[in-house]
Amino acid sequence: MSKEQRQGKQSDEVLQSLRWEKGALSLLDQRLLPEETVYLRLTTPQEVWEAIRELKVRGAPAIGIAAAYGVVLGVAEFAGSGEEWLAEVNRHAEYLATSRPTAVNLFWALDRMKAFAQDLAQSGKTIVDANQALLAEAQLIQAEDEATNRLIGEHALTLFQDGMGVLTHCNAGGLATAKYGTALAPFYLALEQGIKLKVFADETRPVLQGARLTAFELQQAGVDVTLICDNMAGHVMSKGWIQAVIVGTDRVAANGDVANKIGTYSVAVLAKAHNIPFYVACPLSTIDLSTPTGADIPIEERHSDEVSMGFGKRTAPQGVAVYNPAFDITPNELVTAIITEKGIIKAPYSDNLRQLFDR
Amino acid sequence: MSKEQRQGKQSDEVLQSLRWEKGALSLLDQRLLPEETVYLRLTTPQEVWEAIRELKVRGAPAIGIAAAYGVVLGVAEFAGSGEEWLAEVNRHAEYLATSRPTAVNLFWALDRMKAFAQDLAQSGKTIVDANQALLAEAQLIQAEDEATNRLIGEHALTLFQDGMGVLTHCNAGGLATAKYGTALAPFYLALEQGIKLKVFADETRPVLQGARLTAFELQQAGVDVTLICDNMAGHVMSKGWIQAVIVGTDRVAANGDVANKIGTYSVAVLAKAHNIPFYVACPLSTIDLSTPTGADIPIEERHSDEVSMGFGKRTAPQGVAVYNPAFDITPNELVTAIITEKGIIKAPYSDNLRQLFDR
Repeated sequence: MSKEQRQGKQSDEVLQSLRWEKGALSLLDQRLLPEETVYLRLTTPQEVWEAIRELKVRGAPAIGIAAAYGVVLGVAEFAGSGEEWLAEVNRHAEYLATSRPTAVNLFWALDRMKAFAQDLAQSGKTIVDANQALLAEAQLIQAEDEATNRLIGEHALTLFQDGMGVLTHCNAGGLATAKYGTALAPFYLALEQGIKLKVFADETRPVLQGARLTAFELQQAGVDVTLICDNMAGHVMSKGWIQAVIVGTDRVAANGDVANKIGTYSVAVLAKAHNIPFYVACPLSTIDLSTPTGADIPIEERHSDEVSMGFGKRTAPQGVAVYNPAFDITPNELVTAIITEKGIIKAPYSDNLRQLFDR
Repeated sequence: MSKEQRQGKQSDEVLQSLRWEKGALSLLDQRLLPEETVYLRLTTPQEVWEAIRELKVRGAPAIGIAAAYGVVLGVAEFAGSGEEWLAEVNRHAEYLATSRPTAVNLFWALDRMKAFAQDLAQSGKTIVDANQALLAEAQLIQAEDEATNRLIGEHALTLFQDGMGVLTHCNAGGLATAKYGTALAPFYLALEQGIKLKVFADETRPVLQGARLTAFELQQAGVDVTLICDNMAGHVMSKGWIQAVIVGTDRVAANGDVANKIGTYSVAVLAKAHNIPFYVACPLSTIDLSTPTGADIPIEERHSDEVSMGFGKRTAPQGVAVYNPAFDITPNELVTAIITEKGIIKAPYSDNLRQLFDR
């Protein structure tokens, strides 16, 4: 793994979370934002696994794309039979799937790569050609994500009017995806279309994705964004400054329950108490009909240091008990609508989500 | 101003926020907790003003006590007539009142010192005797606060049962007062009485009083405390872990609206949504019948650096807009009860708070 540091704002280049470059995965180390813009050059599945695990890359779609490239890297120098090649692809995919437990896009992207490899293995292609095709598939996942996000943004923007205040939590932006993001996509499209929105970004403890990433990427793009601490969300709602909430998600269950960054549930409850619509933006790949309800989604617990030493400095007493879930579940009754590339879905979610996949 | 550093835990000494010692105010610099226990020796009203302003001392009762000692320091070396002495007392009191705008105890303590000085000035005492009496009055404010808090704790504890989970926000503990605290007082008394409570402490961004102070002082005392980020409060409530919320307050209006650390309002809304009682603990001196409603309480806005650089490290992009209110208002309909040294007050607050002062 090598590092390349890019300093200052590069006006001719959109900040991208990851891209394939010269036979390796070039990946923006998001833990260093907003202070440093460092691209890591990853060349093995192990490096990709660690990058996902350590939150150098985060955001459900971006994790899926990174993992797909991880599979490509795993077999890049493979020499052997087609059957052995397929076994290698599957081995790397299963390994990469263990990097984080909650994001369904991770499993979705890896399953897609495994299914694609299965077909390739039976096609009689040479290993070199098969690897080329596998890379093309990973790149297609990325390109489709960008197109998907633009569609999500277009649908979402129909829910917003000029002058509205919109609150978001965590980072479901361009940095979490190939481009545009999911929850942040309407803000970029609003900017293109001259529609003025006032965005409030929760800083999103403990890892501060809202402060470090959402505020950063929206500011870079010229969106009107105001940073607040998570515990200020209710207060700004009570002041009448918020007309809508929009967030991304790591997984939507078949009944419309939503897993997203810890704190999302609190925001949803607060939105309901203030009669503010609560929207969830995601691609279809984030909706998992095989997960019946939110109770079936495993909630990752992370290290206490994220809370007690999250800023490189001890902020809580040594040895104190810490509870640090990475996600929470927002029950479907708090979700006003789920915005996908295929349109806006409302309750009853069990029926309407299933119909979405049948279209 | 001099500093004395005390390291390690001193088992024979209860951690105290402030005390009068050898002609000066010895004040624990709470900004350095939990890493360092440094007592500042303050000898002028200016030093006290700065200590309040810069949150070296915080918590409504502790601020009031500190300000009272600040007045004492202002006239300690005064030489002149009784009338000039009184003018000096008033001048220092008015100056100290400008240190923070929200805490009513600050004004209450300073008004008490001014009224006491007025009587002294008319008593014909020498300046030396008057100063001695003025110091005794400040010490009385402190001693009364300790006794008051113990009574608040006793009343509050009647609302809790063995095995309950109780959430608190910010620090209304011994560090915020003379001893015991207000919201934390029942936890200390429960410990004395062998009643097991499981306390959850919100870390309380941006200044992390929950992580640095509440978790610290409860841990030191041996109370079962778990630290969470503010945005996890809804999630732990949804898991059924919380049976009550208790917080302190900086000012209660005549109608029962409560001003407290930013984030309190969100916690109150979340508690209501989960049918969890929301209690506010405070001495009568925090209840201000001359403030009709929460809308009449000025909300201090603090510097954006607390949010964007709160840990000595930049966590948000340079130049990003930040909204950083220090307090919010919880409307009386979200308050299950207000617990004072004179007992537990419930709605209708306008009537019941007035009656409390008439007793």
